[in-house]
Amino acid sequence: MSDADLKENLSEEEAAAEAEAAQETESLDEENRLKPEFVRSVKEALDDEDSDRVYDLVEPLHPADIADLFELVDADERLTLARSIRDLMGVEVIAELNDWVRELLVEALPAEVVAEIAEQLDTDDAVAMLEDLDEEDQQAVLAEMEPEDRAAIESALSYPEESAGRLMSREFVAVPETMTVGDLIDFLREHRELPTEFWEVFCVDALHHPVGTCALSWILRCPRNIPLYDVMKRDQTLIPVGMDQEEVALRFQKYALISAAVTDDSGRLIGQITVDDIVHIIQEEAGEDTLLLSGAGDGDINEPILLTVRARLTWLVVNLATAILASSVVGLFQGAIAKFALLAVLMPIVSGMGGNAGTQTLAVVVRAIATNQLTDSNTWRMILREFRIALANGAALGTLIGLGTGLLFGNPHLGAVIATAMVVNNLVAGLAGILVPVTLTRFKVDPAVSSAVFVTTATDVMGFFSFLGLAVLTGLA
Amino acid sequence: MSDADLKENLSEEEAAAEAEAAQETESLDEENRLKPEFVRSVKEALDDEDSDRVYDLVEPLHPADIADLFELVDADERLTLARSIRDLMGVEVIAELNDWVRELLVEALPAEVVAEIAEQLDTDDAVAMLEDLDEEDQQAVLAEMEPEDRAAIESALSYPEESAGRLMSREFVAVPETMTVGDLIDFLREHRELPTEFWEVFCVDALHHPVGTCALSWILRCPRNIPLYDVMKRDQTLIPVGMDQEEVALRFQKYALISAAVTDDSGRLIGQITVDDIVHIIQEEAGEDTLLLSGAGDGDINEPILLTVRARLTWLVVNLATAILASSVVGLFQGAIAKFALLAVLMPIVSGMGGNAGTQTLAVVVRAIATNQLTDSNTWRMILREFRIALANGAALGTLIGLGTGLLFGNPHLGAVIATAMVVNNLVAGLAGILVPVTLTRFKVDPAVSSAVFVTTATDVMGFFSFLGLAVLTGLA
Repeated sequence: MSDADLKENLSEEEAAAEAEAAQETESLDEENRLKPEFVRSVKEALDDEDSDRVYDLVEPLHPADIADLFELVDADERLTLARSIRDLMGVEVIAELNDWVRELLVEALPAEVVAEIAEQLDTDDAVAMLEDLDEEDQQAVLAEMEPEDRAAIESALSYPEESAGRLMSREFVAVPETMTVGDLIDFLREHRELPTEFWEVFCVDALHHPVGTCALSWILRCPRNIPLYDVMKRDQTLIPVGMDQEEVALRFQKYALISAAVTDDSGRLIGQITVDDIVHIIQEEAGEDTLLLSGAGDGDINEPILLTVRARLTWLVVNLATAILASSVVGLFQGAIAKFALLAVLMPIVSGMGGNAGTQTLAVVVRAIATNQLTDSNTWRMILREFRIALANGAALGTLIGLGTGLLFGNPHLGAVIATAMVVNNLVAGLAGILVPVTLTRFKVDPAVSSAVFVTTATDVMGFFSFLGLAVLTGLA
Repeated sequence: MSDADLKENLSEEEAAAEAEAAQETESLDEENRLKPEFVRSVKEALDDEDSDRVYDLVEPLHPADIADLFELVDADERLTLARSIRDLMGVEVIAELNDWVRELLVEALPAEVVAEIAEQLDTDDAVAMLEDLDEEDQQAVLAEMEPEDRAAIESALSYPEESAGRLMSREFVAVPETMTVGDLIDFLREHRELPTEFWEVFCVDALHHPVGTCALSWILRCPRNIPLYDVMKRDQTLIPVGMDQEEVALRFQKYALISAAVTDDSGRLIGQITVDDIVHIIQEEAGEDTLLLSGAGDGDINEPILLTVRARLTWLVVNLATAILASSVVGLFQGAIAKFALLAVLMPIVSGMGGNAGTQTLAVVVRAIATNQLTDSNTWRMILREFRIALANGAALGTLIGLGTGLLFGNPHLGAVIATAMVVNNLVAGLAGILVPVTLTRFKVDPAVSSAVFVTTATDVMGFFSFLGLAVLTGLA
């Protein structure tokens, strides 16, 4: 960016900032979300087909807020909104759009317009925009693009989904380590085609292998005559292009990275990943476990409802099978229940409490696995830890419910049975809560996806079996 | 940092990097975690009280891996480990330690040693180290510190826990907007006391109010004679010092920030927050919902076991109360169950499936609230959406279980009853799954903490009541 460009950019930004400051009180609430009244006035203007008013309302917003606005209006208003604010739909807005909203908008646009937008986006954002399109639509868009941009996107799409190759940007600054600080600054001032924002400069050898990284603050603080090999940090974290994005996010966290070099199979520098693209992934991956454990699938509230129903129903049907399995255990004891119906009244307490305890352990273990806190080195210690916790909780809850039941129904035998069943089922819950996810991880299955079914099956089945079985065995019914 | 300092630093780093490269294959697995064999050899050396061997093993590790190592050895080995590698326990290791591990180590050290470490840490890391100490220990450490450092930490501790004031670093670069790029570069080269790593320079007016932010890449690309007011971005995101860390994390994500200026009540620049401190928070806050929803409390596997038992047991006792409430509903129908024990066999299916469906909705809604996707603007639309999903899932599951039951037991009446109850309970689940967290949010209660109790109570009670009630009402038993 030349200084003339910069000036032009900035005077625009200045005007925008002023307008925004004036509007800010009107459009954003104290938690920085768009106010309902503001959203309502946009919706009213959309209803009235008053594009000018829509434009005036939206124009002062930050691109991230425009992207949010699309989520807050109804699905059938989104295309009209996009049409009304066409020239505000810059790359920042497109890049910030929710995946489902973007897909809706992109599918409604002709291929050449999508191609035009994709060419303005950074490669990683363009890939995010195109990767969910049908093969056919994708090809149509790619065909409309400049060969160079198309090549970059096709190369990104050739890497697996959710890999570093899809995330990386192909725009970065790489220079020989023998360059001096002064020469680097001159180089940066002269080359307009370089990316406008970057945080580190990568030093490479003759084969384009990264040999060190210079934070810009170090460069700014060194005299011009110092060579980069005296400034750069040699101990760098390199990201292989095929690495899964969750793993990339963990490296960024572990080593507090701002940007990192991406290398191909032969170790050549081919891209960079910056932390602003990673924060979304950290957030998604960490939040995903909540959704996966509950079987809510993708869980995005903008997902088309039929996909949501399908995802959730699949999980519910699997759970129905396990519920039937558990109820067939109850079926074994029908005779006892007919004789002594109080057993049916109390049995859900044992199974339900086991379910709760199992869910606690499962949540802790799944998080610990996801954050690399639980590894083969400490698995046994954690199993022992969960066993002790389960024993303590089981003893406490068993005593409580045992005494309560014994006293309330004047039946110490019943109290002893439910107390024992409670201890047993808490142990089952604690052990299943850790053994199931640990075992699934060994078999390279994401423990967040399928652990819950196994754990609740175990606690339901064992809850009913231990309580009803003990009751029959001890001659209670 | 002068270039001499830099050189010295770098030759050390160089040596470390080489040693690390040699060891890397030995100590880290393919997912960048410490290998079990490596951890085992450290533990063996600790057992043998062979400090030198421990030191040699640990020395090549990255500080973040040393911090991980402390989590992977047993709690009673941690102090010995710290003693064996005393001069490797640099600020990077201390800053990366798990909170519980750090507390254990810090409590074992004399106040003057803790003070010495705290003085070397950035303010935010020093605060993290001291904030969990007892009031008395904290005062003892502060008393040992240099007045300037003590003042910075005391001021940070005066802000609420988990606020921007605790997170921010007091080291940043602030200059007048009238300075030119050349003068700024000279200023940075001359002033050694400035922070060594920073990503943006803040421009301030005479009252020290921030007026703009310059990314270092823009500064490097502009000619020396350009004044900063032509380079800086005026439209900046300022963080009020009292803002909650979750809110800070959302701003960083929303506006893709690398660093941000923190201002006091009168709008003066008093600190900066950088994204590397935020990624941990994003991860924690997003992952926390999984733990909170399950009632697992803090959920850290290094938490002392008694605290863990207390946290989980509290939640389980609350759930015990709701389980008893649900079972008392079953108690109303004891007579019917005694006559027709099959009702007891089938009733857990209805309540359990409702619980599963409710948990799905709850997970989605809690995530959407946490990420500001669900606001007052779209609450009604989302309630309607969940209602429709619940109706679809209820109809599908009801048909499935109704037909199955009717055929298996040759009792269409029973099939109709369980099918209807299933639809009813799915609707209860869907509505409770969204109304409970939305209502709690209105009352400023974190929906992740307490929603699950209400939702599962609703699905248990209504599951039993609808199924058994319909059975009795329609004369089935």
